[in-house]
Amino acid sequence: MKVLGIVVEYNPFHYGHLHHLKESIKLVNPDYVIAVMSGNFCQRGEPAIVNKYARAKIALLNGVDLVLELPTVYAIQDAGGFALGSVGILHKTGVVTDIVFGSESGDIEFLKKVAHILVNQTPEFQTEFKKQLKMGFSYPNARKYALMGILSEEVAKLSKSNDILGVEYVKALMKFNSSIEPHIIKRIGADDNDPEFKGKLSSATAIRKVIRAGQFETAKDAIPPTTYEILKEEFSKGRGPIFWEYLEFVIAMFRKMKREDFEKIYSFNEGLDLRFWEAARQTGDLQQFVELVKAKRFTYSRIRRAILHVLFDLEKEKMEKSNVSGPQYLRILGFNNKGRELLKEIKKKSEIPLIATASLYKQILEEVEKQRDEGKREWKVDRELYLWQFEKDILASDIYAFLYPDKSVRSAGMDFEQQPIMM
Amino acid sequence: MKVLGIVVEYNPFHYGHLHHLKESIKLVNPDYVIAVMSGNFCQRGEPAIVNKYARAKIALLNGVDLVLELPTVYAIQDAGGFALGSVGILHKTGVVTDIVFGSESGDIEFLKKVAHILVNQTPEFQTEFKKQLKMGFSYPNARKYALMGILSEEVAKLSKSNDILGVEYVKALMKFNSSIEPHIIKRIGADDNDPEFKGKLSSATAIRKVIRAGQFETAKDAIPPTTYEILKEEFSKGRGPIFWEYLEFVIAMFRKMKREDFEKIYSFNEGLDLRFWEAARQTGDLQQFVELVKAKRFTYSRIRRAILHVLFDLEKEKMEKSNVSGPQYLRILGFNNKGRELLKEIKKKSEIPLIATASLYKQILEEVEKQRDEGKREWKVDRELYLWQFEKDILASDIYAFLYPDKSVRSAGMDFEQQPIMM
Repeated sequence: MKVLGIVVEYNPFHYGHLHHLKESIKLVNPDYVIAVMSGNFCQRGEPAIVNKYARAKIALLNGVDLVLELPTVYAIQDAGGFALGSVGILHKTGVVTDIVFGSESGDIEFLKKVAHILVNQTPEFQTEFKKQLKMGFSYPNARKYALMGILSEEVAKLSKSNDILGVEYVKALMKFNSSIEPHIIKRIGADDNDPEFKGKLSSATAIRKVIRAGQFETAKDAIPPTTYEILKEEFSKGRGPIFWEYLEFVIAMFRKMKREDFEKIYSFNEGLDLRFWEAARQTGDLQQFVELVKAKRFTYSRIRRAILHVLFDLEKEKMEKSNVSGPQYLRILGFNNKGRELLKEIKKKSEIPLIATASLYKQILEEVEKQRDEGKREWKVDRELYLWQFEKDILASDIYAFLYPDKSVRSAGMDFEQQPIMM
Repeated sequence: MKVLGIVVEYNPFHYGHLHHLKESIKLVNPDYVIAVMSGNFCQRGEPAIVNKYARAKIALLNGVDLVLELPTVYAIQDAGGFALGSVGILHKTGVVTDIVFGSESGDIEFLKKVAHILVNQTPEFQTEFKKQLKMGFSYPNARKYALMGILSEEVAKLSKSNDILGVEYVKALMKFNSSIEPHIIKRIGADDNDPEFKGKLSSATAIRKVIRAGQFETAKDAIPPTTYEILKEEFSKGRGPIFWEYLEFVIAMFRKMKREDFEKIYSFNEGLDLRFWEAARQTGDLQQFVELVKAKRFTYSRIRRAILHVLFDLEKEKMEKSNVSGPQYLRILGFNNKGRELLKEIKKKSEIPLIATASLYKQILEEVEKQRDEGKREWKVDRELYLWQFEKDILASDIYAFLYPDKSVRSAGMDFEQQPIMM
């Protein structure tokens, strides 16, 4: 049995995504397709344009059999954490055999070579790395230059976002000692962050921008009819579109915080705490806030993610634990009939609990712990981390719902009220 | 030397306020007039329509010689705490000889009689009070019925807001063992909360409502030209008008909180914590939030104030301490030439530190403590409480500035940048 796993955000699902999905299926020829998808907040550090259930539905309508949620604590991390979480989910299902991801270089062997050096910390790499650190370079730059010292000009290939993520996917597979086979598809079309609207070849960023400008009908050219219809429905029900600036109120929250309060939060190092503290006092405009915090060592995405880390109280210790142990549950967002069959397999083989009904998350944990304690099955779950990760998903949804344009639909608890999408 | 003290909010200053001021001056014939005024948040639990400096300026232009700020921790309390703080400020200046306040009944002797019973907890009152509590009445109702048992139908007079506040003013004077003489002026014109616009006789509530509806020119009939001009200037600079709904983002904050987090905050008892927690999950609309929390025992004002207690983290212990010790500093918002003379007197006689330049608040405290420790002067200041109260004023201003309609003027630190208004 071949099961293809892909990692997606679908914010929103467009023709580039459809192409990637079709090509991946052509390449692997799988019996089933599982997508692990960001929930209500994405890796760019932004709320998704429509909620995770709507986006899962679109995925199912376009060829995915099962959509699992990438827990928020991974979805809003840098490439390393994002890859660890998403590969972790796919690996821990116990059924995925192949992963396909996009790549600018199209050179899987090269990505594996880099991942090997980084995971195994070869002596050659360590020497180079220490040398670079001593020269005063930041951690990521020292890493990059050390790799250059070993792989010479080849590393230039690593400047593109998909390749960087690709290395992280391979690293994560190695970390989990996974037998999943990685494949790549050479990327075509727009760059993920290309803001220019180019019809069918537009990036998700460009599509969101056009919608932001009130030109949803123009966006129609860049998205399959299913995406268009479901976005339209969500918008008409007042549940979207949601844009990043709706989070502007975080500045008021930041003004209540001391510098030390920021220091406790994940990703606050290298002086980011001071920059946040100061910028929140200087401006009441979220875009300007990010500009004020911006520095060579802090990218826009990192800053936006850090804002969410504060908003969701993602303390360092728990995040670091999460980045060692990986995800603690498989959360079902939606499935079709094939997905239903696959879920039966996953139920037998997964090493972490499968959550269909969110409101039962505590009972599910107890059941699993009972089975483990009675020696019936070897569940790999850390009680505290499971609860922490899952409750952060709930919180993220509750904050997300507050952002809905229509005040009358902003109630919290969507995770408890909405059952997985069944097609 | 006669110094008249009045307690005001001036949100905004209107003809009713002007009448009260003129009548008070006629009654007392003072050499100086001091107003203690709410800062950026008012007793109705709302941000003021324009900031405290603009409102202080209007007060000075209309006959007040010196404006002192009522610390936020008192300004957003019920009648008892509000009166304790404002009378505390006037008493602790060491110079105020007379206080005048409005009253519906016009019967100062009656207010004194009630205050006497409540402050001294006469045996007769205690017996009645315990009886009512045993019958299952809530604390405030048991108090009211016990008073009725003693004073019979006279207590009916106590149903109006100014008389209730009046009793609290007299109680506060007794508590501070103050020699200040209280006087009353029978109220004319609109009730404080009358929402109907009635030209020159409109309440501040009605005036704000008209401005909210975009009819600032109509409001002109209800406010002196000085108020109109200064409001106009503030609005043109993007610093107003500010309305309560701008605080809607508190709902997102509340969704991050557990029930126990509410319990730590002042005024959260009788189940208010549960009602807040639940309502924040049910709605994303601030007005509806208040409706959901509303119950017989929770008035709208109390709920709005409780929202601010959470927003400013006013923990129970420090608030209770504040309500025993009273205000810990005199903060100057503005003065005219006569006010400048008066400040010299206050500097000699006040028992708590006088703050003109907010950024020096720590140095001022150190200086005062040094004088006290060297036996030079008997300052009555609690270090911890002084810092806590003052820093809450700073926080309130920093959050208030975030509410400014024009994003480009929302920077924090207004208290440190703005010097007292000098006319």
